Amino acid sequence: MLNNSELIALRRELHKYPETGWCEFLTTSKVVGYLRSFGLKVLVGPNVINPKYVLGRKPEKVTEAQARALQEGANPKTIEEMGGYTGCAAILETGRPGPVIGIRFDIDCVDVDEIKENSHKPYFEGWASTHQGEMHACGHDGHTVMGIAVCSWLAENADKLCGTIKVLFQPAEEGVRGARPMTESGILDDVDFFFGNHLGLNLPTGIISPDPGIFLATTKLDAHFTGKASHAGAEPDKGKNALLASATAALSIHAIARPVAFSSSINVGTLRAGTGRNVVPPSADMQLEVRGETEEVCAYLREEAINRITGSAQMYGCTAGIEKVGEATDFKPDSEAINLVEKAATETVGPDNVKKLQLAMGSEDCTIMLKRVQAKGGKGTFIVFGSTLAAGHHQNRFDFDEDVIDIALRFYQNLIMLVAGKAN
Amino acid sequence: MLNNSELIALRRELHKYPETGWCEFLTTSKVVGYLRSFGLKVLVGPNVINPKYVLGRKPEKVTEAQARALQEGANPKTIEEMGGYTGCAAILETGRPGPVIGIRFDIDCVDVDEIKENSHKPYFEGWASTHQGEMHACGHDGHTVMGIAVCSWLAENADKLCGTIKVLFQPAEEGVRGARPMTESGILDDVDFFFGNHLGLNLPTGIISPDPGIFLATTKLDAHFTGKASHAGAEPDKGKNALLASATAALSIHAIARPVAFSSSINVGTLRAGTGRNVVPPSADMQLEVRGETEEVCAYLREEAINRITGSAQMYGCTAGIEKVGEATDFKPDSEAINLVEKAATETVGPDNVKKLQLAMGSEDCTIMLKRVQAKGGKGTFIVFGSTLAAGHHQNRFDFDEDVIDIALRFYQNLIMLVAGKAN
Amino acid sequence: MLNNSELIALRRELHKYPETGWCEFLTTSKVVGYLRSFGLKVLVGPNVINPKYVLGRKPEKVTEAQARALQEGANPKTIEEMGGYTGCAAILETGRPGPVIGIRFDIDCVDVDEIKENSHKPYFEGWASTHQGEMHACGHDGHTVMGIAVCSWLAENADKLCGTIKVLFQPAEEGVRGARPMTESGILDDVDFFFGNHLGLNLPTGIISPDPGIFLATTKLDAHFTGKASHAGAEPDKGKNALLASATAALSIHAIARPVAFSSSINVGTLRAGTGRNVVPPSADMQLEVRGETEEVCAYLREEAINRITGSAQMYGCTAGIEKVGEATDFKPDSEAINLVEKAATETVGPDNVKKLQLAMGSEDCTIMLKRVQAKGGKGTFIVFGSTLAAGHHQNRFDFDEDVIDIALRFYQNLIMLVAGKAN
Amino acid sequence: MLNNSELIALRRELHKYPETGWCEFLTTSKVVGYLRSFGLKVLVGPNVINPKYVLGRKPEKVTEAQARALQEGANPKTIEEMGGYTGCAAILETGRPGPVIGIRFDIDCVDVDEIKENSHKPYFEGWASTHQGEMHACGHDGHTVMGIAVCSWLAENADKLCGTIKVLFQPAEEGVRGARPMTESGILDDVDFFFGNHLGLNLPTGIISPDPGIFLATTKLDAHFTGKASHAGAEPDKGKNALLASATAALSIHAIARPVAFSSSINVGTLRAGTGRNVVPPSADMQLEVRGETEEVCAYLREEAINRITGSAQMYGCTAGIEKVGEATDFKPDSEAINLVEKAATETVGPDNVKKLQLAMGSEDCTIMLKRVQAKGGKGTFIVFGSTLAAGHHQNRFDFDEDVIDIALRFYQNLIMLVAGKAN
Repeated sequence: MLNNSELIALRRELHKYPETGWCEFLTTSKVVGYLRSFGLKVLVGPNVINPKYVLGRKPEKVTEAQARALQEGANPKTIEEMGGYTGCAAILETGRPGPVIGIRFDIDCVDVDEIKENSHKPYFEGWASTHQGEMHACGHDGHTVMGIAVCSWLAENADKLCGTIKVLFQPAEEGVRGARPMTESGILDDVDFFFGNHLGLNLPTGIISPDPGIFLATTKLDAHFTGKASHAGAEPDKGKNALLASATAALSIHAIARPVAFSSSINVGTLRAGTGRNVVPPSADMQLEVRGETEEVCAYLREEAINRITGSAQMYGCTAGIEKVGEATDFKPDSEAINLVEKAATETVGPDNVKKLQLAMGSEDCTIMLKRVQAKGGKGTFIVFGSTLAAGHHQNRFDFDEDVIDIALRFYQNLIMLVAGKAN
Repeated sequence: MLNNSELIALRRELHKYPETGWCEFLTTSKVVGYLRSFGLKVLVGPNVINPKYVLGRKPEKVTEAQARALQEGANPKTIEEMGGYTGCAAILETGRPGPVIGIRFDIDCVDVDEIKENSHKPYFEGWASTHQGEMHACGHDGHTVMGIAVCSWLAENADKLCGTIKVLFQPAEEGVRGARPMTESGILDDVDFFFGNHLGLNLPTGIISPDPGIFLATTKLDAHFTGKASHAGAEPDKGKNALLASATAALSIHAIARPVAFSSSINVGTLRAGTGRNVVPPSADMQLEVRGETEEVCAYLREEAINRITGSAQMYGCTAGIEKVGEATDFKPDSEAINLVEKAATETVGPDNVKKLQLAMGSEDCTIMLKRVQAKGGKGTFIVFGSTLAAGHHQNRFDFDEDVIDIALRFYQNLIMLVAGKAN
Repeated sequence: MLNNSELIALRRELHKYPETGWCEFLTTSKVVGYLRSFGLKVLVGPNVINPKYVLGRKPEKVTEAQARALQEGANPKTIEEMGGYTGCAAILETGRPGPVIGIRFDIDCVDVDEIKENSHKPYFEGWASTHQGEMHACGHDGHTVMGIAVCSWLAENADKLCGTIKVLFQPAEEGVRGARPMTESGILDDVDFFFGNHLGLNLPTGIISPDPGIFLATTKLDAHFTGKASHAGAEPDKGKNALLASATAALSIHAIARPVAFSSSINVGTLRAGTGRNVVPPSADMQLEVRGETEEVCAYLREEAINRITGSAQMYGCTAGIEKVGEATDFKPDSEAINLVEKAATETVGPDNVKKLQLAMGSEDCTIMLKRVQAKGGKGTFIVFGSTLAAGHHQNRFDFDEDVIDIALRFYQNLIMLVAGKAN
Repeated sequence: MLNNSELIALRRELHKYPETGWCEFLTTSKVVGYLRSFGLKVLVGPNVINPKYVLGRKPEKVTEAQARALQEGANPKTIEEMGGYTGCAAILETGRPGPVIGIRFDIDCVDVDEIKENSHKPYFEGWASTHQGEMHACGHDGHTVMGIAVCSWLAENADKLCGTIKVLFQPAEEGVRGARPMTESGILDDVDFFFGNHLGLNLPTGIISPDPGIFLATTKLDAHFTGKASHAGAEPDKGKNALLASATAALSIHAIARPVAFSSSINVGTLRAGTGRNVVPPSADMQLEVRGETEEVCAYLREEAINRITGSAQMYGCTAGIEKVGEATDFKPDSEAINLVEKAATETVGPDNVKKLQLAMGSEDCTIMLKRVQAKGGKGTFIVFGSTLAAGHHQNRFDFDEDVIDIALRFYQNLIMLVAGKAN
């Protein structure tokens, strides 16, 4: 079993080679290597990712990422096995009757340039990102190591356990893209207890929360408007203005009437329109997202946004293509699961450090996994492991307190023993 | 034949009882009375107005106007004969071979409240409008009297003339609504020489212009947006917001790309949307117009405007009804007709007072009549009779120099003799 | 003391003569008449309404309403006493030490045309509104009678009570206009326990709620855009387009970013822009409202809306005048007051019929009164009296179950005895 | 004197090394080399370009271009002499009294990638652009060679001429940036006859036009909106949305009311807004242009556009910086100059090939030079030399018929002899 120094060393190695969503080839290769070395059954590629449900994956970036991973030491056989799809899962079948537990850890990084200053510990100590524009600025390197640690423990303690334990290493959580295709592989369909988790989130090291609050259901959309170019000084009336179509859409999307009693949010985050000053703009690209406290509110906002994109394109004689590139649902944890987490957390950090919270935490695609588990009769919740941060999530000075790794490991030992200890 | 004092008295009587487009029952009744008293053949109602092409006529206003006209002394038999459609034409058939001449005078007033101040001559002298909100503020009372004067002269001088002379008294020129249905009655289909006219237009009394400049082709549209009301404080997401749909349409209609090399104009003139502060607006009414130097430019702007109305309604889950309520075409006078007018005008006011101009004069539905005449092989132009004004057209202090009536009468005598004098 | 038949007869009389906000002259005159006949001290006009804080009052409508009230039998002396400001208050000073209680009833009607069909009981029985366009369609006639009934009881039971009881008859609740100026008269500054109430709200007769849920803070604004007219066909570039300025404002007001975790709503309810189809629109009038779960959210939305109106006017070379015409604040009832209401309600209708609710009830300017009371150290809440309705609030078939009047009277007897019974 | 083969070879060499506006270091170096080899007086850098009036010049791109030019063989001494500013002028002072003639040739390329297909002659023959993203796709390589050819002839024929001849090689005509600072050097202040020219423009080889039609006055603007980022899912109300500000500006700029009787055009050509899908957009960049038939119309549109940018920024709590990056004025050629060109053209290509035209040719900053000349009492016009094209201007397959070079040379010989031949 990996000791704490080894886990911290591994976290720093992962931090040095961050990979963005759907590009986690080196990361997956390393995780698979560890899991197999522990003697666990491992699922890879299409066995854990249903390609039909993959969102927001750019083939050309994937190809580049594969090449880079190989160059940086990924196992060529594992890469081949993955078939282009990152992520994996370890499965421990004890052979004894008992519950099926699913635990999810996410493994991707964010599109941020890590700061190069000596005051930033990863840089000063030499384990900052070597991939420009990519950084583990949300702590998923920590999550990955927690997952490996749990697997390491599971392998050595299988004889104390019953039922089945599945540990999921999910790609592309940023942009809420990876949970849906992992769920649609069917891996969660027999899970009785499901847990996701995140470190940090403004809670100090030592705190564990078994019910952290609200996740908003969300849909991420890309819209592409196609018009027609013409010379703006000579024949402006011969063009079809995609810039004005997209501007009209942006304004009216933000003007969608909101359900009064529910949290919601709308954002047209980026707009890139037109090719030159003196050309009637023939195209426009828009990235947007909607969020709602419930699945229904989110769906309402999404449908309205789509209508406004379609209608505004038509107004200006343009066409609009709309692609869904990410999604998550709302969060309704089960009291039975919360109680289990509360017990295990209390054993781990003491009663004063276990806190139910009402955070507004944006969106998490782990909610899609939980909803599937619940639809099949299972229970679950989402756990926050406090970890004092050097800077906020997604910032270029982000770093977390590595003590959280050991806390999470001990917590999961307690939780698994509670749910699937042989005595049970 | 009516003398000048009688003509001026008649003009003032018409001024006192102005009637807005499609409501000119009293006016038509009076004109018909004079024409018949001269012994001319007179066409009335559906014989000069093709109902299928009537635009912008509100039945309830027509009914009110008929009742008022009867109360104010209209001839009940004439009213009945009209069948609800105002306007008429006098026809003099000389029985001698010769050209067919058509001359058009318009008879409607504008929706303006005449000023009640002693400095305003019609008010001071007691012949200002007695119809609130209606006023002859564009000089069509003068045009009507000119037409009657020409008919009076024609009746007495028929033996000096050859061919056929048709004098048209057109309703609903304001809003460019009456010319199309009058044209579609077929009355102009055999006309060889066609003339329309207007007094004033910033030319002083004594000036005659045989080719005044540019008329823009135009279409007038009414759009009605239908959405769905809901309580804005409780369920705004259950409504369909017709106000925002119409606001979006208005902005994008004004943003239509203009053909660079042609005169054009766009105006959403009025917008009335919503029913109450705390209700999602279920409806909106918009009045708009487009104008273009050519028929094609006008058609392009109209089609774009319609697309934007339809598309914006769709964006907000609303529907939009669009009605054409007025139209005129562009103006391409014939040099043969211009030359005839130039000669007759020179005989009337001397060579120094005859001026070709390049005025930008808005739109005139007389252009629809001219275009039909030209399509059948005839020729024509439009004449401006200078008349010094007390205030600009459509203003509540508008008044014109009545000397223009005699000038126009003498001009038409000269023109008709030139074109259809028996010697010819 | 008025018996139930008399109260119902009085309610129907009030229903027949509904008066809109700031026009309740006949109603106030009647209320004052009753209060004085009971021997209570009565405050009228500027003594209960601070004119400096009056919102949304149109002087010309007030003058008309005064004349009508006199014609319909209002007491001329009372009208004079009111000095143009409707509303009144009764004050019972027991002379014994004890708490100061304030209870508020609103007296205005809404701008709705009552239906004229036999299936509508008020019409069938001959007590429907005789004022066209005005109707008691929100039950304030019932509130008024409840207030009179409470006063009638107070007068006869003064010897059983201690402290002071103030019964407020507030004008102009619709549009949330009357509470602020009544509060600013200072009448509530010594109140220890304050109660407002409403009947109906989808609760059946017999139910009483001591804490009905959320009222949103709100501000009502009128915006007037001033541009410059010009002829759209000749000189559109010489105009300043107030229609486009207002359309731009409307869109961007609806696009204000919403605080995610709070209820809020925005509505531009009406827009009236432009004077004619062919005139660049010189003016536009907009009625809007913003609502927020907290005072802060409401203030944020209001300031953003004002910025957008001002900025859009500037964009188009127009100016914008903005007037606040109504306001209410959020609702934070005190548990001490809720408990008192719960007890009195339980005595009145039994424990099964007392319900705390989480209704989303729009906005109520009673919240302004409660906030003032709380600021001075007092407590309060808002009570809903269930009353089965014939149709929803503000609909032209609205009618309520008159049994609610007696229930409310008995409830207030219990409540007042509980809070200010001499034994206390 | 360079013969035609040499001129064609030179054109192809220039074609191979195209340089975009303000980056024409290699080109200028070569031109200066030729002019000095002819023994002409040459002005360079700040002597022909007034830096204070330079528009749309990016210092970092200039630095790169200098380095590249040196690498590709530019004369280091000339580069130093230029002081960072491209363009030059040759001056022939005959010493004999006579008129001052100014002729302008532009030397920059456009931002287009030249097609790499064998069907494209420059590629097939090996003289296509070697600078990616830069291409002589508007024929300015031809213009440059024409200017050198004229200088070559001037140097050898100085003894036949009187007065002074100035040949201007203007940088940065694309984007209409270079004429103003060249004019402001004062070089044109004593010019009596001024001529600019362009090849192609859809006229076949052999045609010369002495008065080609209308150039629109224009202003090019860059606008930068600055708002404030915030997390769209957590605190959208804490951001200031620059994307919506720019969208609002774009719509309302296109909705500016147009003067009816004048050609005009408006285009927001590009918009780049926002940084990420889930971030309230903190910035937006917009490139736009306005054009008008007259300087006044252009100024009106520019001022309106600026108001709308400023106002829309204010609406959304953003700020906007606006920079003028290009300008040209309208075109009013002098009949005296047109007549001279007509004579010289007739001598060159025969009377049937000389055509006055009414092309709508967009904008040309040569108009700024002509306007200055006219302000000082000089005369001028603009000449089009027909040249059959392989593809339209600014397209990646553009190529012109090189016969035009000799035609232009012979024309200018005739013109100069006509205006400044010693006999005169």
